[in-house]
Amino acid sequence: MHAGTESLLDQHIVLDHGTGARLSRELVEFVVDVLGDVYTGEMEDSAVLPISVGNIAMTTDSFVVDPPVFGNGDIGKIAICGTVNDLAVVGAQPLYLTLAMILETGLPIGVLHRVLVSVRETAIEAGVKIVAGDTKVVGAGEADGIFLNTTGIGVFHEKPKRMTDVRVGDRIIVSGPIGNHTIHLLSVREGLGFEQRVVSDCAPLNGMIDALRSKVPAEAVRSMRDVTRGGLSAVLHEYSSALDRTLRIEESALPIDHETRMAADMLGIDPINAANEGCLALFVAAEDADSVLEALHSHPYGTRAVVVGEVTDRPGKAVEMLGADGRLREIEELQGAELPRLC
Amino acid sequence: MHAGTESLLDQHIVLDHGTGARLSRELVEFVVDVLGDVYTGEMEDSAVLPISVGNIAMTTDSFVVDPPVFGNGDIGKIAICGTVNDLAVVGAQPLYLTLAMILETGLPIGVLHRVLVSVRETAIEAGVKIVAGDTKVVGAGEADGIFLNTTGIGVFHEKPKRMTDVRVGDRIIVSGPIGNHTIHLLSVREGLGFEQRVVSDCAPLNGMIDALRSKVPAEAVRSMRDVTRGGLSAVLHEYSSALDRTLRIEESALPIDHETRMAADMLGIDPINAANEGCLALFVAAEDADSVLEALHSHPYGTRAVVVGEVTDRPGKAVEMLGADGRLREIEELQGAELPRLC
Repeated sequence: MHAGTESLLDQHIVLDHGTGARLSRELVEFVVDVLGDVYTGEMEDSAVLPISVGNIAMTTDSFVVDPPVFGNGDIGKIAICGTVNDLAVVGAQPLYLTLAMILETGLPIGVLHRVLVSVRETAIEAGVKIVAGDTKVVGAGEADGIFLNTTGIGVFHEKPKRMTDVRVGDRIIVSGPIGNHTIHLLSVREGLGFEQRVVSDCAPLNGMIDALRSKVPAEAVRSMRDVTRGGLSAVLHEYSSALDRTLRIEESALPIDHETRMAADMLGIDPINAANEGCLALFVAAEDADSVLEALHSHPYGTRAVVVGEVTDRPGKAVEMLGADGRLREIEELQGAELPRLC
Repeated sequence: MHAGTESLLDQHIVLDHGTGARLSRELVEFVVDVLGDVYTGEMEDSAVLPISVGNIAMTTDSFVVDPPVFGNGDIGKIAICGTVNDLAVVGAQPLYLTLAMILETGLPIGVLHRVLVSVRETAIEAGVKIVAGDTKVVGAGEADGIFLNTTGIGVFHEKPKRMTDVRVGDRIIVSGPIGNHTIHLLSVREGLGFEQRVVSDCAPLNGMIDALRSKVPAEAVRSMRDVTRGGLSAVLHEYSSALDRTLRIEESALPIDHETRMAADMLGIDPINAANEGCLALFVAAEDADSVLEALHSHPYGTRAVVVGEVTDRPGKAVEMLGADGRLREIEELQGAELPRLC
């Protein structure tokens, strides 16, 4: 048993164990440590599974977004996008998803219907099928409306992409504006009035990745992540840790909508820590950055793609940002994102 | 939209939508209707998926058992057994499972640890690996301690088994005593004092199915189900409906432990409706029934296997039971099992 596991044993779960930053990473390490060799995943977004001839990808996600139906989306759409995107970013073609639901007594069937319609529509857009399902119902107060789990598998037409394929000098591209999903959700939740102007970016991204694949060589994109819980900061810290290299980004390059920035300032949120549901971070060979950007720009979900930084040659886990004021500062890994239930 | 879907639209979720009987079947039909051709499962326990060469099986289950830790097991053990068994009964070798957790703020990490240890131990017994995971945390009162989802895939070394492979005259075999899991859980929950003498049957059954496969021809067992929510009654109704044949069982043949029967009487529960977590119903060619029984008896989980009935040639969906008093009575499909959160 690792020291970290030992030290957690007598503690209690807190909200930040689920918010994508350090405490949740520690919880994941705890889980992996306890499971030992029963766990064979590699901390990629999807597990890559040898089966007879060929590999398949498999990934799982539970969804507890609050509220389950929000301005321009709902938990059903998020549940398909989240799992489809996790499969797509490892280079797989998402094929089959399972759908499991935990429903609280008293949930209006109309809400369930709306969620299922979103599941259907999003699955059609993403080109995936639901192949198995499960429903559990708990008493009033034993859950909060509706929780979903989707688990998906996909097949590979190319080599699986891994974090460790990233090289020094690779450019970091973000496929679209960051922070909008979080600001939208908080606005709906708290009745702040931004939700008409700042909408969630929730989208299945496999179509955009397919478009990219058709226009640039497979090797051009070394690795990808969808930017979800913990925001761009969490993704960068994850890669920095896996690569043992400092990543550097430029503040002025970050695609942040004006109204998102205003709302974030008001709410005391840094968009770099904010969850998204339809945004990719891509690590791209420097010489291919322009053609990758061009390919992304040709897809509706990638029109605002931009290079935000690069992988430096300096060893050590660190993420630094060149500020608009010309000063370099370190982006700390958050202890907890402090914004629960955004997905 | 089917009439049943339409009629549910304005209603609310009730507990019985999750308890494995008629109302939950209607809810599943609702889901399938709304999903339309996005859903490609066939209402078998696992989806059978064509992938490149060969098929894989895939199934999902969420677990909300209350309490999460009980006398001789916990939600972790149930979560592995449930999914392993769903894969095994369609004739697949379970290989890879995902594990997703929804945790309530305040859950003692010690409880999570115990659950994960059970996951590990049970996965080792079943010969499966966890290949991906997910953790969500919700606030106090937004869930009840710990909910799990496991989704699994398996591969086939023989033709997938389907309900529709069952033939008139096939014998119905039950692999072990029924009702124990339910009585054990209720006793723990309500402090009734049976829980030392009546323990849960929770077990991964793929080892027993492998033993069976090694001793009888694959065709001998036409179809199998693990007897979970809704009990043996739900399984029989499911087959009767799929086959359009009356199934007949004999009351005196049902394997029910003495103390389970006493407790069930006291609690007003019919063991035939009670959930199990380590019990198979097998539909077996009449001429192979003896050799199947013999093979089951050679495995620790099958020592009490017994023929309980057969598939008659009478068309129509009905399950009838020849009572100990020599009278034939119909076993009604329950409206709701009325015992939530047994798995």
